[in-house]
Amino acid sequence: MGELFRHFWHPVLLSEELTERDGPPVRLRVLGEDLVAFRDTQGKIGVVDARCPHRRAGMFFDRNEDCGLRCVYHGWKFDVHGHCVAMPTEPADSTFKGRVKIKSYPVREAGGCLWVYMGPREQPPVLPHLEWTLVPESHRVVSRRIQECNYMQAVEGEIDSAHVSWLHAPLKGGNNPFQGRFNNAIITDGAPTLSIRETDYGFCYGARRQISSDEYDWRVTQWLAPTYSLIPSKDFPRGGRAWIPIDDSHISVIRYAYHPDRPLTADEVQSRKTTPAIEPVTYRLPDGYVIDISRDVRHANNDYLIDREMQRTRNYTGIGVVRTQDTSMTESMGGIVDRSEEHLGTTDATVIAARRRLLKMARDLQAGIEPAAAMNSEAYNVRAVDQVSPEADFPRFMDRYADVALGKVEAV
Amino acid sequence: MGELFRHFWHPVLLSEELTERDGPPVRLRVLGEDLVAFRDTQGKIGVVDARCPHRRAGMFFDRNEDCGLRCVYHGWKFDVHGHCVAMPTEPADSTFKGRVKIKSYPVREAGGCLWVYMGPREQPPVLPHLEWTLVPESHRVVSRRIQECNYMQAVEGEIDSAHVSWLHAPLKGGNNPFQGRFNNAIITDGAPTLSIRETDYGFCYGARRQISSDEYDWRVTQWLAPTYSLIPSKDFPRGGRAWIPIDDSHISVIRYAYHPDRPLTADEVQSRKTTPAIEPVTYRLPDGYVIDISRDVRHANNDYLIDREMQRTRNYTGIGVVRTQDTSMTESMGGIVDRSEEHLGTTDATVIAARRRLLKMARDLQAGIEPAAAMNSEAYNVRAVDQVSPEADFPRFMDRYADVALGKVEAV
Amino acid sequence: MGELFRHFWHPVLLSEELTERDGPPVRLRVLGEDLVAFRDTQGKIGVVDARCPHRRAGMFFDRNEDCGLRCVYHGWKFDVHGHCVAMPTEPADSTFKGRVKIKSYPVREAGGCLWVYMGPREQPPVLPHLEWTLVPESHRVVSRRIQECNYMQAVEGEIDSAHVSWLHAPLKGGNNPFQGRFNNAIITDGAPTLSIRETDYGFCYGARRQISSDEYDWRVTQWLAPTYSLIPSKDFPRGGRAWIPIDDSHISVIRYAYHPDRPLTADEVQSRKTTPAIEPVTYRLPDGYVIDISRDVRHANNDYLIDREMQRTRNYTGIGVVRTQDTSMTESMGGIVDRSEEHLGTTDATVIAARRRLLKMARDLQAGIEPAAAMNSEAYNVRAVDQVSPEADFPRFMDRYADVALGKVEAV
Repeated sequence: MGELFRHFWHPVLLSEELTERDGPPVRLRVLGEDLVAFRDTQGKIGVVDARCPHRRAGMFFDRNEDCGLRCVYHGWKFDVHGHCVAMPTEPADSTFKGRVKIKSYPVREAGGCLWVYMGPREQPPVLPHLEWTLVPESHRVVSRRIQECNYMQAVEGEIDSAHVSWLHAPLKGGNNPFQGRFNNAIITDGAPTLSIRETDYGFCYGARRQISSDEYDWRVTQWLAPTYSLIPSKDFPRGGRAWIPIDDSHISVIRYAYHPDRPLTADEVQSRKTTPAIEPVTYRLPDGYVIDISRDVRHANNDYLIDREMQRTRNYTGIGVVRTQDTSMTESMGGIVDRSEEHLGTTDATVIAARRRLLKMARDLQAGIEPAAAMNSEAYNVRAVDQVSPEADFPRFMDRYADVALGKVEAV
Repeated sequence: MGELFRHFWHPVLLSEELTERDGPPVRLRVLGEDLVAFRDTQGKIGVVDARCPHRRAGMFFDRNEDCGLRCVYHGWKFDVHGHCVAMPTEPADSTFKGRVKIKSYPVREAGGCLWVYMGPREQPPVLPHLEWTLVPESHRVVSRRIQECNYMQAVEGEIDSAHVSWLHAPLKGGNNPFQGRFNNAIITDGAPTLSIRETDYGFCYGARRQISSDEYDWRVTQWLAPTYSLIPSKDFPRGGRAWIPIDDSHISVIRYAYHPDRPLTADEVQSRKTTPAIEPVTYRLPDGYVIDISRDVRHANNDYLIDREMQRTRNYTGIGVVRTQDTSMTESMGGIVDRSEEHLGTTDATVIAARRRLLKMARDLQAGIEPAAAMNSEAYNVRAVDQVSPEADFPRFMDRYADVALGKVEAV
Repeated sequence: MGELFRHFWHPVLLSEELTERDGPPVRLRVLGEDLVAFRDTQGKIGVVDARCPHRRAGMFFDRNEDCGLRCVYHGWKFDVHGHCVAMPTEPADSTFKGRVKIKSYPVREAGGCLWVYMGPREQPPVLPHLEWTLVPESHRVVSRRIQECNYMQAVEGEIDSAHVSWLHAPLKGGNNPFQGRFNNAIITDGAPTLSIRETDYGFCYGARRQISSDEYDWRVTQWLAPTYSLIPSKDFPRGGRAWIPIDDSHISVIRYAYHPDRPLTADEVQSRKTTPAIEPVTYRLPDGYVIDISRDVRHANNDYLIDREMQRTRNYTGIGVVRTQDTSMTESMGGIVDRSEEHLGTTDATVIAARRRLLKMARDLQAGIEPAAAMNSEAYNVRAVDQVSPEADFPRFMDRYADVALGKVEAV
């Protein structure tokens, strides 16, 4: 599965985490590899091995100067492409110089994020055309934080329509956290009927809830393999997450909100920056490598600040932030769920479908078949759909709302 | 050995740790299994798997309401017997509902403790008739704390008469911690003669010390397999411990004191609640699961607050609390002793006997023979004996004091 | 390699860490073995197993009294040679007493340190005649601290002439940390020519830098297998380090400075005691054993207090202390470097030579050939050489300066 992931671009840092030319490197781990990122004198980004190829000293302590990162141990210097551009400990006539590179990955900047491609292609594919990455910077807000579980536990929460009616439910008298954005059915009907349509990029599925004798609430979620999903909402700014594996039991979570047509207001930006509250931490991974990242101030070590009185009277969980409610569930499963202990029900059809699709892609890759989705960036330019309709049949509903799903028109 | 333990009831929580109906669940680990306990609307206790059988979300965060613990992820609800009494994400006609249970164990309440039976019998045996569990609540005080070593290291300290003369000894001028309860011989004679009598429930053994030309101090300790022992004392209230495995290298220690005939005074209760001082901790086990428990304020990380001046002048260890003196020894052995490094001497005969008995019970179980002690709760209703006698022979001494050992009369 | 190390004496504690007769034991780990050291009533030092051979209780908590360390669990007592001199739990006529010893190692005191020999010889060899251990106490200052990496990563930094020009370099306008002690060439020429001469005790090598058309700066470093090196310097007091393996990924670092001919001044002592600043810690090793040691206040968990502004303007690393600059490099490689990821260059010839020599010694030992250096203590009485000379050839240079290298005359 790790090999499969290497065929896709992944957003691994925010641009705002690495603004300073010749500034300090930032430590990160992606797909289990320890890396540092730096922005060079010309503003180019390098993402390279966390340790020098010479004697393996840590590159975090290095000098970022004159278009390269220079190991302070012996002065070897590397550019953003990993070329060793200075090796001052070698004699002038040494033939050794040209033979050393530091591991380095291609980087792109889009959507307020820095993306890396860790795959085998000489020419990486085009970045996926996710709508939030295509709008002007002013139309978007992004943040990044760590989560302590396998990425798939988080992804499965995104394509799981049923939990919304429970985990995020207000109690009578409590505030509806969705502030009227959803049809009331989503709160009251916890057992939606699910229909799945496989696509090039993953699948979309409709969750249908009956709201009157002749009308259905349709919520069509897009799952864009391997780590994105688009949650239906009538309104913009609309938000979402990317769940990028740090390693098997940690994720770097990119959270975004955007409006396709206008800049976000200061209030819209502010509310997304402060909920949930995150704070920078020097995070020590279990095997000792340190990464520079933020963390939800409500975390497993403080039981997510669960408030049992709030749980009794105001909302279902007693955890004050919707996003953290999800985190408490996916982290409390442990680093990686023992799936043989699960009992999947009717509303887990989407979870099952995503697992099957990923396993198929991994097996295909073993058989030499590259994931088509990785090369098909246009396919990622879709939207989720949130629509009341008399149509009961999912294929017919999708035919009718194809232009909404393709972002060509707004849902009404 | 784990299988053997499952045939016995174990006290795993204090009743006072779980008083509130529909209150927050309590996290615990017993015999290596992660569990949560809850008291339902009717006051019934449930002890169930720490994770939901649906998608494995943590049950600690759940809603305890309307006679069941309801997973906040998707609203599945379980009663104290583990039955899934609500599965709202399933369609009304789903046949899946009846097929899911959460792992659940029978629970009893006795001796101020909650007991679980994790064994194979449909009908669990009767609780062991330990005297301290049979007296009225007013006659007893109990507490619970964690200890960081294998249970057997602690049990072996209980059936080890010799160490009392050393580990717990006062120095000249220091206070005798036993406040005159013991014959002086126990302090002055560190090499007692030991005699063992195997019984249905384990064994009893006599430690004989000569105190004059024609009198012996006899202390008869009862070992009640697998985790209890009764320490001889002339006086009531008399105390003891149960050492319940959390996992291979952690124990939940239940400490009790009781008087068979009268309520404890406020002072008697208070002194046992404050010595050793314990404090609640959110204890993170090495693999990450958190349990809700108390801990001795003197622990390995602060060297048990050893005071070398006290050790020079007042008592043998420089550790101010008798119980913590034991803990410092059994924990400093490490999580599990490498027994191939031991050199067992004459006074370790009891330690050897207990190991042999447990190994025999485990081998018997492998051969299909259930431990008889687990089914013989009456047998556990015995007392230790502390008696000066001219009798030098253990079998004859025991014949003479059988009624004392059976709790039928007081020793004189 | 561990077996090879056992053939050598190692300094494991400072004398000043164990001054008190009958005082508290000190915990240490050497070559992966958990030990405690104590100074008995007569001032003799014992270094023994950290756990009692009886039931494996921790010896740190024991009573150091009447010429022995007495386990407080059952009163068994051991002298500095490991003999069990009291076993009070045994009957008077027990034959068991004479059969128990605690693991114990020979100890010597020299150079302000306590040395242990953990090898197979009945008669240990003589201590190595390192010059700093032979001068009067007043002529010397020593300190000890922990470092979190394999000893070889640290040793390799000592025999690596090239890094001095980079890691320790001042920037223009910054202070030269070497305060004029070195020829300017060392800072300006980062690619010295290295020549190695194998010796009985390890090797010496010359790093040659051209400083004018007819003169060379020669710095001859001595590597004294397995854990010492002598760094060239014109001046006394001259300092150095010993890197003693605690286990595979921790080192006890002994740091010394000495003058062969006169007592150190108070200032000379003071500056070496406070730079780098160290502080006592109760250091918990990853598997739980605690050792009593000091630690650099700049450590991996605070990124060695790196100051990026200092790095931009004053010195190469932004780390304020020369010694800590080295530590940041050797620790950031991780506990043990994966050497298959290295790319060794021309100036790593000495690193390669030391590895080859150690591997040869380990293979020889497997073939039954003891390391000759371990038995040849006189051979260790050498000095490093720091000399400007017109001589370009290393063998001829060494012939000329043999008496300097042997400490018979001072370099001029």
